[in-house]
Formats: sequence, C-alpha cells, structure tokens
Amino acid sequence: MSGQLDEQGRLRHFLTTEGLPREVLERILGTAESFSGVIEKSVKKVPLLRGRTIINLFFEPSTRTRTTFELAAKRLSADVLNINVATSATTKGESLLDMLQNLQAMQCDMFVVRHADSGAAHFIADHVSPHVSVVNAGDGRHAHPTQAMLDLYTIRRHKGDFESLRVAIVGDILHSRVARSQIHALNGVGAGEVRLIAPRTLLPRDIDRLGAHVYHDIDAGLRDVDVIIALRLQKERMQGALLPSEHEYYRLYGISRERLALAQPDAIVMHPGPINRGVEIESAVADCPQSVILDQVTNGIATRMAVMSMCLEHREDGTGGGA
Amino acid sequence: MSGQLDEQGRLRHFLTTEGLPREVLERILGTAESFSGVIEKSVKKVPLLRGRTIINLFFEPSTRTRTTFELAAKRLSADVLNINVATSATTKGESLLDMLQNLQAMQCDMFVVRHADSGAAHFIADHVSPHVSVVNAGDGRHAHPTQAMLDLYTIRRHKGDFESLRVAIVGDILHSRVARSQIHALNGVGAGEVRLIAPRTLLPRDIDRLGAHVYHDIDAGLRDVDVIIALRLQKERMQGALLPSEHEYYRLYGISRERLALAQPDAIVMHPGPINRGVEIESAVADCPQSVILDQVTNGIATRMAVMSMCLEHREDGTGGGA
Amino acid sequence: MSGQLDEQGRLRHFLTTEGLPREVLERILGTAESFSGVIEKSVKKVPLLRGRTIINLFFEPSTRTRTTFELAAKRLSADVLNINVATSATTKGESLLDMLQNLQAMQCDMFVVRHADSGAAHFIADHVSPHVSVVNAGDGRHAHPTQAMLDLYTIRRHKGDFESLRVAIVGDILHSRVARSQIHALNGVGAGEVRLIAPRTLLPRDIDRLGAHVYHDIDAGLRDVDVIIALRLQKERMQGALLPSEHEYYRLYGISRERLALAQPDAIVMHPGPINRGVEIESAVADCPQSVILDQVTNGIATRMAVMSMCLEHREDGTGGGA
Repeated sequence: MSGQLDEQGRLRHFLTTEGLPREVLERILGTAESFSGVIEKSVKKVPLLRGRTIINLFFEPSTRTRTTFELAAKRLSADVLNINVATSATTKGESLLDMLQNLQAMQCDMFVVRHADSGAAHFIADHVSPHVSVVNAGDGRHAHPTQAMLDLYTIRRHKGDFESLRVAIVGDILHSRVARSQIHALNGVGAGEVRLIAPRTLLPRDIDRLGAHVYHDIDAGLRDVDVIIALRLQKERMQGALLPSEHEYYRLYGISRERLALAQPDAIVMHPGPINRGVEIESAVADCPQSVILDQVTNGIATRMAVMSMCLEHREDGTGGGA
Repeated sequence: MSGQLDEQGRLRHFLTTEGLPREVLERILGTAESFSGVIEKSVKKVPLLRGRTIINLFFEPSTRTRTTFELAAKRLSADVLNINVATSATTKGESLLDMLQNLQAMQCDMFVVRHADSGAAHFIADHVSPHVSVVNAGDGRHAHPTQAMLDLYTIRRHKGDFESLRVAIVGDILHSRVARSQIHALNGVGAGEVRLIAPRTLLPRDIDRLGAHVYHDIDAGLRDVDVIIALRLQKERMQGALLPSEHEYYRLYGISRERLALAQPDAIVMHPGPINRGVEIESAVADCPQSVILDQVTNGIATRMAVMSMCLEHREDGTGGGA
Repeated sequence: MSGQLDEQGRLRHFLTTEGLPREVLERILGTAESFSGVIEKSVKKVPLLRGRTIINLFFEPSTRTRTTFELAAKRLSADVLNINVATSATTKGESLLDMLQNLQAMQCDMFVVRHADSGAAHFIADHVSPHVSVVNAGDGRHAHPTQAMLDLYTIRRHKGDFESLRVAIVGDILHSRVARSQIHALNGVGAGEVRLIAPRTLLPRDIDRLGAHVYHDIDAGLRDVDVIIALRLQKERMQGALLPSEHEYYRLYGISRERLALAQPDAIVMHPGPINRGVEIESAVADCPQSVILDQVTNGIATRMAVMSMCLEHREDGTGGGA
C-alpha cells in the first residue's frame, strides 16, 4: 500500500501493516522497546512531541482504544484533543472533507482515526495536507495496524525472533480487522508459520492470498504452536446467523486448558481484548501464567508512542518538510 | 460597552466589539500577528499562561468553537477544563450564579462562555469576582467577538489597511451574532465602507444605527467590493417561514462565480463556517484562490490566543490586582 | 479500616476517614495548607506529580466533583484521563475487574473512583496491583472522605484547634456519605463535641456507635455551637416518603437567620454544595459573612492535591516499591 512512507522511507502515515517493508516494521518494534523503559518509570513522559497537536477523531466510539492513544500522546508531551464525530458539528451538515480541512487549518499535526467503514483512514490520508499524519485506529473490517504491532512486540519480548515461530490465530477471522493486520505483519517480519483456525463461515474469501495455513479443526491447528491468538467474537459486527450460539462457539473454538496443552509447553496466549470469558477463552486460561493479555495492553502504549513519534519527529515545521 | 477594559485601558473581559477603542482592536490584531508565528512552528506552544486555568463553559454545544478555544489555551500552556452545562450539575437544581461562584472559588482565571441567550456573557461578567475574565464565545443573536476579530485579522493580512476597503456582508444579518460583531469591529477600525446585503426579512430593526449601507439587490451590493463575507444560513435559529427554501436563498443571495466577478478582481471571499455548499456559496467559489475561508480558521487560533493572553497576562496574582 | 496505609504508615489509598490515625489526618491538613499557597498564585502549578497518570473513573456522573479532582491533578502537573464508565466499554460486556486490570496495565498511578454503591472504592482498592492508588470520590451512602477533609481544613483555617469546638451536622444524616465521613474525621482529630441534628427517620440505625450526640430539636442542637454543617437534601437518594415536602424540611431543619443566632456569634456555616436555597439553608444565611461555603470549594482543591500527592509522592517507580 503506497503513501505510508515518505521519499526517505520514513513513516508518514500508519494505515495498514500490509506491504510495509520488514525494516520499517522492525524499526517500530525497536522504538517501542525504547519507550517501554519510559513508561515503567514514575515520570512516564518524554518531551519528543511537545507543542504538537494530536486529534483523536473517532467516528465510532471506543473508550478503550481512545484511552491508549490519548495516554501515548500525553506521554510524548503532545497536546491531545478528543473529537467524537457522532456528536459534533457533522450534525450541522458539514461534509467530512470540509471538517478535515477545518481541523487541519487549526495546525494540528496528526489525526488518529477510528471509523466503522473499511478504507476510511486511507481516504482521509489521501485528502490531508502534507503537514498532517494519519494513524488508523481501526477501520471497519479492514485494518487495526497498531494492534497488530503491539501483538508483534509482545511476541518478540516473550519469544525473541519470529523465524522459528508457529503462530495460530483463532476465531472470527472474517470480521476481524485485527486478524488481517496481524497476518500481514507476521508475514512481514518473516514469522515461521501463520495458522488461521476458523470455520468456513468465518473466513474471508480472499483467504488463499493471505499467506497462511487454514485449519478448521482447532485441535490440529493448535498442535505445537508457540503463540495462540484468540480473537474477540465481534458480536456487534456479525450479520446473520453465522454461528449457533456463544456456547457452541466456545465448544468449537474456545481456548480451554485442554486445548492449550496441545501447544508448545511454553506457548503464550494472546487476545486483543476485551475478552469474553467462557466464549473465546476459558477463564482459567486468561489468568494463567502463559497468558500475556495484560502485557499486550501495556505494550500497546509503548507501540503507539513509537508509531506517533516516528510519524512526527522528523517534521521540522508545520509545512511538513523533512530534513 | 463598559466593563471590558480596566482602569489602565487593558482588556479585562472580551464580550463585544461594540464600543471598543480602535487602539484596543488594533492591539488584538497585532498580538494575533505575533502568535501566528508561534503556531506555524512545529513546537506550537508558548508558556505565557502556564499554571492558569481556563474553563470552557458551554451552555450550547459547539465542538468547533470549543475546539478552537481549547487549542488556543493549550498553545498558551494554560490548563483547560471543558464543562458542558447542559449535562452537568445544573440538573441538580443549582442556580447559574451559584454554579459560577463555585467554579471561580476553584481559582479559575477565565470563563469562555457560549450561550443561546443574548446577553449571557455580559450577565456572567457582571457577576464574576475581580480575578476572573470572561470571553464571549457567542451569545444568542448578540455577539461573537472573537469571530469578528479573526475576520478582521484575515482581512488585514490579505488587504493591509482598512481605510480604503469596501466590505460586503451577505445573508441572514438578523439572526447573525457574527454579523453584528463584524459591523462594530469594521467600523471600529475605520473600514472604508460596510455594506449589508440581505432581504428586508433578514435585517434587524435597528439596522439604521449600525453604520452600514443596506442593499437588497446582491448584484448592486457586490459591485467593486474588496471583501465579501458570506454568512451562514442559521437554519437552527430561524423561526417561522422567513425564506422559501435553500434553493431560493442561493438564487437570491448565494455567492456564485458570476457574482464574485462583480467584485474587485482581487476581492477575497470569507465565511465563518461551517459552509453549506450550494446554499450560501457555490462550491467552486469556496475552493477558489480568492477564498480565504481556511485562513480564517487558522487565524482563529492566533486571534483567540491574543484575546486570552491579553485578558490574563497582566494579572500578577489570583486576586486580580494589576501592576 | 486497614489497607489505606503502607508499612511505613504512609497513605497508600484514601477510602474512608474511619479509623485513620490522627497523625495522618493532621498530615493531610498540613499538606493542604502548603498547597493553598500554590493555588493562590497566578501560576497555580507544582511539578510534584509530573509524568504520573491519574484516571477519574466515574461510575456515577458528577461534573462538580470530577472537576475538582481534575483541577487538583493538573495543578500537581499529572496527566488526567476522565472515564465515564456508564458510556464506556463496559457496554461490551467486560467485567469490572477486567476493566480495572486493563487500565492499570496502561501504567496508570491512581484511580479516583465515584460509584453509586457503598463499598465500591474498597472493592477496587482490594483488587488493584501494588503500584496503583485508589481515592474514594464518593461511594453510595458510605463515605466521601476528601469532602470531610476539606471541611476539617476549612474549620481549622477559621477556628484553629478542634479540641474546644462544638460542631453541629444538620439534616439527612441517613443518606449522607458526607456526614459519615465528617463524623469519623471530626472524632479522629479530637473535636470537642459532634452533634447530629435530624429527625429519627433520617438517622442511621448504628447512630449510637458513631460517637456523636443526637438532637431531634434543631433549636436545642444549634445552641452555642461553633460550626454548623448543613447537609444537602439528597433528593435523588431518598426512597419512600420519609419527609413530607421541601417546605416542611426547611421549617424543621433549614438554617435560618433566627437559628443561626442561637449558635456562637462567630459560628461558621458550611454546606457541601450544591445548595438548595430555601430548603437546607436560607438564602441570606448562605451569603452572609459567617458562611464559608465558597471557602470550602477553594479548600477542596488544596485538600485533594494533598491526598493525591501523599498517596503517590513516595513511589519511586511504576512497581509501587517505596523507599
């Protein structure tokens, strides 16, 4: 996907993990590593983005995601504005593009965009002026690239290199922007094997092009893996009766202690949250030592700090010109 | 209007452009100029109001206006609190004055007030304690003085001095606090000629006292002007059937390319936003090189920084004593 | 109540005034005193909690209380996040404990908790990790300890020592978390006499254990007191017809000028706000020189700064380890 990198190959927008060079993906992970040190201190703040303005532009409410971006921005010393578009001036009939032009005329530096429509962040990135960066905080079924990067970062902290790893992604792949971004990112850093475990009805049609092995039987799919990623059952995104019930989902695709035992003894268990206990994951598994679900949350702040600072730090002035 | 200036002639509140000495109006424009330099840098921040507390007290929601004041305050390094009164403690039956006294007891320095009733900001300014400043962010049909000042600032940046200028304000003058504040401000700085172009039904009754020339025919009114200000059709403020339709409004008072051609070749086109394309203004005009609508937005931050800092910077302590 | 103090006797959480050692109560008052100097300056800010993250976690809306905590945190230079839980991710079915674990995984330092259920702040304090402090901003009918401390601080500023004072608390004791916290705090600092003036129907059943003198007749109860604390009539908390009407309440328990005259000539009148004029208090009394109701608001900021900084300032790092 073009447009995310500037002429020097530096991050300008962060819209998708698809097609990003391995070097850029690894630079994000390395930068996140350096910020992990910052947020473990009592003074969790660096002056990197002091005087920059970041606007959280949420067309779809998500307290959880907005909170992590807001915290990341504040820990970089940026000024943050939250705009919930559903309740804002769009009710006065202003078009999206006019609203964007107005906000960027206020000399903001970054839009963090959450939108229910796939492609919204790209559309916005295509229309902002050169001094504004766009970070995709989740668009429809398309992508949630910062989630994928925090997952990679969490895997690397626990497992080291990606080359020898077998990673299983379990559940509703079809509706999951998280899964799509994870698959592209894992392939981008050269993960050993990516397995997708899902019923046919919860797999996208272009599954063959994603570069992953498909398993319909969870027990076969989990055998000997190093990383299990349970997806959230996107109840609010499911249209039609693709699944009989939550109980049935758990029986077929829930991560239980018995299933965890099929993986490597030191396998880690991940979930993008919020978890539905007893649906995607057995409560005891969510809380067991192999679960790194809360590490993911912690790493999410450092990863978002990395993406935000990498997009903005090389801008010398408000006109967007690099060095 | 008394009460806006202290004994040394410095700004204490900013409630209306009516009756403000030319010298004060020009000091605001000059201060805004200095802040324009700040917000074009990558570190868009000055420490002028560090440790001051500014409360955005919005009795009427306006994400757009609130955002500009919040950004202006943050770029002055003030602490900002947003209070949406419609959803706050007034539901517990507290009176407005008790609420104000409580907020100022928290040692805040400024209220930025938006209210649906004309005169609300003056009422509040009359009742706050000496250490608190009030800035009017729009009160009913009465005034929106920071909008008028950012318009003047935009005109001055594009046109230089005001003396020789012909300025046409087009549209719904009757319901427009913006127009009233513009007329007073333009007369205050000695603008060459102020023209009001509107149907009789959309003109205030005291029109003769405003010091402006009235045109009912837009083509006559636009001839040879240097500045065209299209007003927003305040659909939400119109009571009764004063106008047949949006289409009819555009036919009678919309700024089209043909009408723009009646003005000076280098005339600029302004609008307080958000624009209704095809109602007050033809889309091609809004986006043409003569349109300075987005400049107005940018200048709005600098102008609000100017007003806020001028009200507060000479205060030495929380008791409101000047030098 | 155990758990509020760490092994060195320093404040770790602030949940209730019940059982707190006198020395800790007095340290809070002394610290508040030092912050009163800060907030009277034009730069109302100290860097004590720079880089710390404080989350206002409000399960029950209260613009007023949230505002005071937000201001206190900002004046300590902390980063503040407001989370209104009613409108947040709990609608996605996440449990309270999972939500808390997620928020603390973001490396926040403090939860300021407001909840409609008694005991909620204790429950949360029992479940947070060692690096997180909890401050109770009001839980059901149970406690509102920062309100009690700002009241004590206000009394001490006006009256000096507590030993010789007679303090009357008037009104709806039964539903008042404020009253419970005041009674414990006043007894904790050795106040001379605490009187409760209320009808039987508005007194808790465990009244005998609270260490206070009960008066059903207000005239007898107010005689010669040094401090009168009128409580807010918690209309929204009253279930069933315990009182005939607001008018009747005023007749029986309202603080009128005549009743104020029964107290010491220099008695002060307090109220936690917002006041219902003509219900709990005569309007002329609320505004008379003996009223210190607005002082309470001002002192609330300094007192909350004291509690927040005392909970966090001795933490050396994000793991909660003390010296």
